[in-house]
Amino acid sequence: MGVSEREVIELARAAAARTRRSARFGEFLAVDIGDDCASFGAPSGFEVVVTVDALVDGVHFDLAWTSYRDLGYKALAVNVSDLAAMGALPAYFLVSFGMPEGVARDDVAEFVAGLEECAVETGVALVGGDTVRSRALECAVTAIGFVERGRAMRRDRARIGDGIYVTGPLGLAAAGLLAAQRGGGTEADAAALAALLRPRPRVREGRALLEAGVMVCEDISDGLAREVRNICAASGVGARVHEDLVPVAENAAAFAAARGLRPLDLALGGGDDYELVACCPAEVAARARAAGVELVRVGEIVPAEEGAVLVGPGGETAPLVGGYEHTA
Amino acid sequence: MGVSEREVIELARAAAARTRRSARFGEFLAVDIGDDCASFGAPSGFEVVVTVDALVDGVHFDLAWTSYRDLGYKALAVNVSDLAAMGALPAYFLVSFGMPEGVARDDVAEFVAGLEECAVETGVALVGGDTVRSRALECAVTAIGFVERGRAMRRDRARIGDGIYVTGPLGLAAAGLLAAQRGGGTEADAAALAALLRPRPRVREGRALLEAGVMVCEDISDGLAREVRNICAASGVGARVHEDLVPVAENAAAFAAARGLRPLDLALGGGDDYELVACCPAEVAARARAAGVELVRVGEIVPAEEGAVLVGPGGETAPLVGGYEHTA
Repeated sequence: MGVSEREVIELARAAAARTRRSARFGEFLAVDIGDDCASFGAPSGFEVVVTVDALVDGVHFDLAWTSYRDLGYKALAVNVSDLAAMGALPAYFLVSFGMPEGVARDDVAEFVAGLEECAVETGVALVGGDTVRSRALECAVTAIGFVERGRAMRRDRARIGDGIYVTGPLGLAAAGLLAAQRGGGTEADAAALAALLRPRPRVREGRALLEAGVMVCEDISDGLAREVRNICAASGVGARVHEDLVPVAENAAAFAAARGLRPLDLALGGGDDYELVACCPAEVAARARAAGVELVRVGEIVPAEEGAVLVGPGGETAPLVGGYEHTA
Repeated sequence: MGVSEREVIELARAAAARTRRSARFGEFLAVDIGDDCASFGAPSGFEVVVTVDALVDGVHFDLAWTSYRDLGYKALAVNVSDLAAMGALPAYFLVSFGMPEGVARDDVAEFVAGLEECAVETGVALVGGDTVRSRALECAVTAIGFVERGRAMRRDRARIGDGIYVTGPLGLAAAGLLAAQRGGGTEADAAALAALLRPRPRVREGRALLEAGVMVCEDISDGLAREVRNICAASGVGARVHEDLVPVAENAAAFAAARGLRPLDLALGGGDDYELVACCPAEVAARARAAGVELVRVGEIVPAEEGAVLVGPGGETAPLVGGYEHTA
């Protein structure tokens, strides 16, 4: 027998009460979950930052290799990652949860437990949502945070001469997706799958980048190549990314080697890593490093006429391609 | 050939730019659509109000009798209605749009045009969203508004002795759903279908209620009976709703008469009318009426022990049942 709406609401409310206690801005909440809307005050001097992203069974994940708990965790994590990319302090979230007939109470409980796990780790409170019948299992999370007025990092402020930096090695989640789809069982596969299912939003890194003076940042949800192209388009600039500077995750390289793939393709084209990519002058990057952020320089911003290119070991260039197109 | 993600984004950005110009709080927007998140300042002395509701093809609507344009309009209207029920000033919205394979660019353009039509009417700006592949057509809208600090109307403040009021006649959208599902062609059917497909969020009424001093308000999305039960549960009170006081929409009564239905069932049990239900002392209701809000008294709040009941013409009582359960 499928779960009832009342049971879903009870599970959500219990989790909401717990997450509120551990949340960074729990005390700013005026109207909590259970009313037509949630309501909260914004701390003085801060702007409100908001984002929404949906995950759909058969498109963004597959229940064959994703547990309900992992799904809940990831649905929130990818949205908190968007807040992190703005340099924001994550505060609240809402969930629109769509379930086919017959989903069991235990499955919903696991999904909510996954949401709660990520919420407690990232300091956000569940403040509202919606439960609907749907044909596939899916959920859309709305995440809300706060950032100092006028300081949000964005994609349209890159300037010629900025370095392009990433906060860590790439490609592991892309390897995880291949491992999940094709089956696997090696140690590298397990690490890759964990990277795919349990992405860690770089909230601390985002804050440190903002505080160091970085103005341009994105999270790498759709592959480094695509994120850099997005920055170029929004800022009206070009970019050179150097093949031999792009850090490939160790297990991703091992995974690629075992399957005859090019490790760089996983790092450039694979999404879901959720490291941050930032553009800034070298002295700003130095300040961020001094604050404890691992920053790997992968290239530089150039005039728009040069386009967005990948620079090979011999200096040869090719268009910077790859990356996930959502509905292409 | 189906629409591409790029085309969806272009349509959304163009609409976002236009809605920003007509929006009540367009000038508070710091980071617009197209970045990881949107960002905005909250006006001084106001709280932020947020809600999310999803509509799914085959569950909340059917493309057989809903145009893409109506769908866009309604998806936003039902969320702005939640803001109205808090007494908030609607400000922004985000859309997570799920499309099956093969949806055409023209269909998406119509959907976005419907969103825009409602956005311009209610003074909100499109500030972000997400497009995903899904098995059924569906959309989840996140709506954001502002309300004076501590003043949001809510469901957990009803007090014994409060009158229960509605802002207009009920039952027409429920008739519209039956007309749509069973086919119809009378004048009453057409009016009913319009009520179902183009609900008008009672923003002005919500503001006037708040300004008159009303503290308890909900929008009637799931039928009057259920909304009153929700208020009773949240406030720890009972309610008496009087059969002969419940205003039934004229066309709903005509529709019911023609089909052998009880008009009251449409008014009590049918959702989607989006009138507001408020609980307050008579003098507060009088102030709201003086401010131009049509308020029909349908009952009163009583001690919890009396439960939530429907009072018949002879004074006999029955449990106040009916109303839409989302996933029961």
